[in-house]
Amino acid sequence: MSDVNAAPAKVHVSLGARSYDILIGPGLLQRTGAEIAARLPGVRAAIVTDSNVAADHLAPLQESLAAAGVESAAITVAPGERSKSFATLEEVVSGILDARLERGDIVIPLGGGVVGDLAGFASGIVRRGMRFVQVPTSLLAQVDSSVGGKTGINTVHGKNLVGVFHQPQLVIADTAVLDTLSPREFRAGYAEVAKYGLIDRPDFFAWLEKNWQAVFAGGPERVEAIAQSCQAKADVVARDELEKGDRALLNLGHTFGHALEAATGYDSARLVHGEGVAIGMALAHRFSARLNLASVDDAERVEAHLAAVGLPTRLSHVPGGLPGAEQLLTYIAQDKKVSRGALTFILTRGVGQSFVAKDVPASEVLSFLEGALSQ
Amino acid sequence: MSDVNAAPAKVHVSLGARSYDILIGPGLLQRTGAEIAARLPGVRAAIVTDSNVAADHLAPLQESLAAAGVESAAITVAPGERSKSFATLEEVVSGILDARLERGDIVIPLGGGVVGDLAGFASGIVRRGMRFVQVPTSLLAQVDSSVGGKTGINTVHGKNLVGVFHQPQLVIADTAVLDTLSPREFRAGYAEVAKYGLIDRPDFFAWLEKNWQAVFAGGPERVEAIAQSCQAKADVVARDELEKGDRALLNLGHTFGHALEAATGYDSARLVHGEGVAIGMALAHRFSARLNLASVDDAERVEAHLAAVGLPTRLSHVPGGLPGAEQLLTYIAQDKKVSRGALTFILTRGVGQSFVAKDVPASEVLSFLEGALSQ
Repeated sequence: MSDVNAAPAKVHVSLGARSYDILIGPGLLQRTGAEIAARLPGVRAAIVTDSNVAADHLAPLQESLAAAGVESAAITVAPGERSKSFATLEEVVSGILDARLERGDIVIPLGGGVVGDLAGFASGIVRRGMRFVQVPTSLLAQVDSSVGGKTGINTVHGKNLVGVFHQPQLVIADTAVLDTLSPREFRAGYAEVAKYGLIDRPDFFAWLEKNWQAVFAGGPERVEAIAQSCQAKADVVARDELEKGDRALLNLGHTFGHALEAATGYDSARLVHGEGVAIGMALAHRFSARLNLASVDDAERVEAHLAAVGLPTRLSHVPGGLPGAEQLLTYIAQDKKVSRGALTFILTRGVGQSFVAKDVPASEVLSFLEGALSQ
Repeated sequence: MSDVNAAPAKVHVSLGARSYDILIGPGLLQRTGAEIAARLPGVRAAIVTDSNVAADHLAPLQESLAAAGVESAAITVAPGERSKSFATLEEVVSGILDARLERGDIVIPLGGGVVGDLAGFASGIVRRGMRFVQVPTSLLAQVDSSVGGKTGINTVHGKNLVGVFHQPQLVIADTAVLDTLSPREFRAGYAEVAKYGLIDRPDFFAWLEKNWQAVFAGGPERVEAIAQSCQAKADVVARDELEKGDRALLNLGHTFGHALEAATGYDSARLVHGEGVAIGMALAHRFSARLNLASVDDAERVEAHLAAVGLPTRLSHVPGGLPGAEQLLTYIAQDKKVSRGALTFILTRGVGQSFVAKDVPASEVLSFLEGALSQ
């Protein structure tokens, strides 16, 4: 962790013909046009963003593209998870076709995870697959959703049940735009940063325990934390692009987390994705301790760090109350990571020692949830 | 062409990890369950079909699956091109998720090109890609749309502008079910059979000129013609799965054809896809002759064969009139095979000598269309 400086970092995602770079650093939004023109000469672009992000960042991006001679159209959707719907997907697809973009042209999702998943999906199906360049503006999107090629929308059946694997040509993560995030939104993204330490990088988790305040404040530690996170994700994705095995490790905290999001009706006033993941990671460690796989000390250490940064860690931290354990289990069982009716969880043997556990008995989950609901 | 007999034929589509077989022969619908159970043990299935096809073929398929121990749900959509829409896609996706199918389970499109394109697309996006087994019931679907992994829906901007490349696990083409097609529908599918001869198999075209009546009547010549067509398509797809080059040859007749379908509002009472392709192929040969690429004799030979089987070959054969040449050109220019504003056509140097022509001047197309409209 010695090489921390303010220069843009570069992480390479190795996927053969579908390989690409992630550029990370402050002020990159202003250089987006030049980076695109240099790598993809002659392309035209459709920017897809939401009205909140547009207010802060659309004009600078458009100016950067225009200055580099990249023609662009802009498509603005409503902010929030509800835009990950068939109806909004159809709007975005129509907007791209209205702009008469061709297969070699690019879509630029400018925004957080919602915009990236939605517009990435649209780019994956217009003309059976256009190119796209992610410009993530939330911490969550920079360290997670913009990397790895998962795109999608939600249905009444659950989150991200419809989508495609579609890899971008380039990811441009401007770490300075994160200054416009609310503290709550930054913290939520930080849950995914901590996750990479918890999966298989215990040294990174220890580094975060020492340096998290500097990451929140900005500067070189922020660039370093984002680059480490992108590298961690890139390593997993390179091993298992289509989630046939190891990639499931990235779901640490997500099976519980998705169930909580569903149980709160995806109401971001109550719970946002990263908060669900934070509680989910704390639960995954406590569940692992209960199954005698990990120590209680490790579970407490994880909970202490997440609490220190201000993230929720317990079911009782979800405002407005939750349904009973049986109902939560139903939400878990509808999660797409269920395989042949058996429950699959990411469990752990300690900090940085996560693994994919198949055939976890539903009865164990149920009785653990009953206990967790009373804490 | 000596090996013509009634035994099921098998064509292999070579695409590395995505390779699959096409089984062709009379009575295969009744063997579908056994073929699936043998190749994909333990899967559950969602059959997607339309109400017309369901009346004739759904029960036999369900019985075949049940007899082999393959559980299935059925999703029925309205017949016709209008079902290739976002709205119907969402219905099919919901139906698959309602049936709680998992990523390894299968979707079975049972029907013609519309059902195959729609349900193939749905299977490509549910859980970011499920498996599927095509059971095409029209000649068009057996020789063209069920082979090669192109799926999609239409928008107001044009046909098949939204979709994914997604290869099936298996294609089962029961040549006996084609007896339930109307003569018009069989002829329309035959246009695509003739196309393979015209692209690069002059011997096959000559064989069709001699044997087309036997193909229409059924029996071993029908199996042979379908197997030859599937092999021809499989060869092209194996060379260029994602349509970066040679695969465009399969669009012979389609640039004109799609424009005619758009100009007639996709009204199947006036023009169905294969009829548009027949006129389009005749026009492509006449346009090539006009550009001094091919002989007028070849253009007349092609037109004579298509006319002999009862297919339309001229713009004046489209009932209800067509818009002017300028408007037809607009429909052509919106076609997705336009690259960087230049017009791309499949032209020919004679029967079985087609090639991809880029940068065809719009002015040449316009003046050719003006002439063709008056014939």
